[in-house]
Parts: sequence; C-alpha cells; structure tokens
Amino acid sequence: MSQAGATGLSVLPIPGLPLFAAGDDLAGAIADALTTASITLRDRDVLVVAQKVVSKVEGRTRSLSGIRPGPSAIEVAARAKKDPAVVELVEGEAQALMRVAPGVIIARHRTGHVLANAGVDASNLAPGNHDSVLLWPEDPDASARSLRARLEARFGVRLAVIVGDSLGRAWRMGTMGTAIGVAGMRPVRDRRGEPDLFGRVLEATIIGVADEIAAAASLVIGEGAEGTPAAIVRGAYYEDADGDGGIGELLRPIEQDLFQ
Amino acid sequence: MSQAGATGLSVLPIPGLPLFAAGDDLAGAIADALTTASITLRDRDVLVVAQKVVSKVEGRTRSLSGIRPGPSAIEVAARAKKDPAVVELVEGEAQALMRVAPGVIIARHRTGHVLANAGVDASNLAPGNHDSVLLWPEDPDASARSLRARLEARFGVRLAVIVGDSLGRAWRMGTMGTAIGVAGMRPVRDRRGEPDLFGRVLEATIIGVADEIAAAASLVIGEGAEGTPAAIVRGAYYEDADGDGGIGELLRPIEQDLFQ
Repeated sequence: MSQAGATGLSVLPIPGLPLFAAGDDLAGAIADALTTASITLRDRDVLVVAQKVVSKVEGRTRSLSGIRPGPSAIEVAARAKKDPAVVELVEGEAQALMRVAPGVIIARHRTGHVLANAGVDASNLAPGNHDSVLLWPEDPDASARSLRARLEARFGVRLAVIVGDSLGRAWRMGTMGTAIGVAGMRPVRDRRGEPDLFGRVLEATIIGVADEIAAAASLVIGEGAEGTPAAIVRGAYYEDADGDGGIGELLRPIEQDLFQ
Repeated sequence: MSQAGATGLSVLPIPGLPLFAAGDDLAGAIADALTTASITLRDRDVLVVAQKVVSKVEGRTRSLSGIRPGPSAIEVAARAKKDPAVVELVEGEAQALMRVAPGVIIARHRTGHVLANAGVDASNLAPGNHDSVLLWPEDPDASARSLRARLEARFGVRLAVIVGDSLGRAWRMGTMGTAIGVAGMRPVRDRRGEPDLFGRVLEATIIGVADEIAAAASLVIGEGAEGTPAAIVRGAYYEDADGDGGIGELLRPIEQDLFQ
C-alpha cells in the first residue's frame, strides 16, 4: 500500500494571503499565494483552508443588530448567559441543542457536526464590527469541491481539499483542528480487512484521516495575529472518494450516538 | 511569537524499529533507529510513540485465561456482548463505566481519559497469542518522562515526548491520534490574552496542541502491516511545562463534563 510512512509528511503554510471579504476570489488568492511562495502542488496534496475565510468570502457574516430573537432564543440565552441575538442565529444553524449551561451551548449543526454554538463565531471579525458574527458556510462540502475544481484546473494536479475549523471535545480541554467539509477524498480510512503486523486481519479500524490532516494543518494555521488561514499537507495517505464524496462518513449517525 | 507558520511542520517516521517485548529497551532502540536512519534530532522536536509499544516493553500484556471475572464483569459483558474476562480487565482499568451497549463500553480510564474499553486492546499481539490483551501503561506521563530523559541525555537536545493512542470520539466516526501521556511540554496551548488579527485580545482560545501533534504523527505511525510505531514531529509550537508537566491540563474536569 502506498503509505506516508516511507517518506514522511510535511505541512506547508501558505504565506501572504490577504484579509478576505464577501465576494472575494479565495481560490484565485490561494493559487496566487502558492505561486508567489514557490510552492508547487503535487498530485494528492491536501489543501486545508480555515472555515473562517471560506465563510467570509461566502458572505456568511451576520449583523446582530437586525435580529429579533424569538421566545426560545430568549429562554436559552438566559440559561446560557449569552446574547439572545447570537442564540437566535445558533438555533437557526442547529438541528438540535444538545446541552445548555452557563457559557456553553453544544448543538448538532444542520450538517450533522456536533459543536459549540453551532459554529456561530464572534472572533476575528474586523475592528469596529463587534455587532457581527460569522456562520459556517452554507455547505462546507460544496465549498471544498469548488476550491478543488478551481485549483486542479489551474495547476493540473489531483488534489483533495478540507475546510477545517477548531472544535472542542466532550472530555478533553482545548480545541482541535477538525474537518467540516471535504472534496477529493474519503474522510475516513477504512482499514478493516487489511492485515496487521502479524498477518491477521484488522477487525475494526476506521481512521478519521480527514480530521487528522486538519489537526496537522492546524499546527501551522494561525488563529491569532499571524493570520495564516491555509496550508498544504503533503504525504498523507487517503482513499479516493466515490464521486463527489463529502464529510458524511466522518459523522456518527444519530442512532449510534450514546451521548445525545 | 515563535511560530511553525514561517517554515512549516514535518513529521518523520522512525524506520527500522524491531518488534518489542516486555523488558526491551525502547529508548535505546529508538535512539539507535534514529542514528541508523540519519535523523538528527533538533531542539524542541517532539517524539511521538505509540502506546502499544510502550505498553509492551512495560509488561502490560495480560493473559485472559488466568482471569476469574466477578459478578459485575459478567453482567456488563452480557450487556456489551464481550468476553467477561476482558470486561474484568476493563473494570480494573476504569474509574467509571460511562456507557455500555452491544459491542461498546465507554469508560473513564483511571488516568482520566475517556475511551472505549478503558484502553484494553486485543489487536496486534503476537500470533498464537489470542489469549492475551494489552493494557495502557501504568502511568503514561511517567513513560513519556523516562523516554525524554534517556533521549535528551543521549543526543544533548531539548525534546518533548508524547505517548499516543488512536481514540474514538463521541460524535465522529473513526479514530484519531491522541495524546495519553506527555513530557517536556504543556499539552494545551493557552492563547487567551494574545492579540488576534485585528489587535483585539483573544478571549477564549485554548488549543489541544498535544492532541494535534499526536494526530499529525498518527498519519505516519502505522497500525497495520507497516509497523512504524514512532515518529518525530518537527516545527510545532508548544509551551514549556512547569516542572514535569503531564497530561492533566488536557483532560476536562469531571465537574465540567456535560456528557457523563
């Protein structure tokens, strides 16, 4: 099997990207930045892009001042000690609120991911813009597919693309780079049926490879002053997607969720 | 701030490691393999070692045939459809069983990590050894500290060491390389107080950096036939630990656990 093990893995930050606003050409800017930085893409490289810049160019900024929170948002906001307008947006992005406690709303996003505030985020917006928050992309898989198509066409290589965000975990402190949308790869690696070290067959090993790649990229994707919202991960083994693929295989079906 | 972003991150598999058994000198074998592979360690490199080989050299293999499961293990095994002898070991390694369902036991390990089967693992043991299972190291932080001391002394560089395992997640499919013991680094990176892209102060960003590094290493650490149980991660920013450090900061305190 083709395996990163032989040669190792590298994670290359993409320097020099500008600040982005709604309508900007993110794929074009990434392509130009790669060229300027003399990073030559190779077949099976994975581009990881931070959700924040994807959301910005897709116009997913929302102004809080125009929002009239409903009774449910007002009630939840009181329990969570959060702004009712923010909670109104959280409810709009969520298929279910799973836990509400002071300072915390854990929600199942309409895409199926479980995360704090259903991805509604008030950090890293422009100064003077404390009225605004940023939602996840409408369809993170579609965002990844679009970036993939543009960059494959421009550079003539076979790529995968991951839209990543920093998500918390139920039992662990700290966020972790996590895949929220993918294109050009299966987000899991299914090793069931492969032989183990002793020639026996692995019974149950599915690896969340898109999350591992997003986590590796997160080590160079800055969230603070450095502002590096994208990276190339080179040398990771992944399986090709059937057709368009998408994040679905990486999400535990609700009926298997022991922690609803 | 010193930041990986400028130069990128690399993950170097350590080739040529032998199979390990109880009492083997893991630190010496890793040092020799690094030398043979001409991998020259640098200050602030992170060595990630798979839990399995740490457990093996520490003699954490247990034979199932000698185990007399108690009434609790027999009852839980019936609900989980698992071997009562395995469940007896799971109960011995757990401070609490959190969920039991057919095929699944989610436990809080005595070290505080939440994971399937409290880390009791029946895969990748030697052929003809289907009677044996492997437990986590007695103290994964101590295992990391010991490896760190030996390798720092041998090579004269400042290192961090992570003992990693592949753990599942509550709401996502597939395992993820995860830190279970650390030495020489804080397992979280606390960015609260740093300025964001617009000079505002980040209010709440704690990053599970040891888990991100373990995930990156997992992309080259093979679990099947390739058998590469250790890797060097170079270029990741981490904070120094106070004193010996340890994994504790990465574990959510039980009183903050919304999913007990």
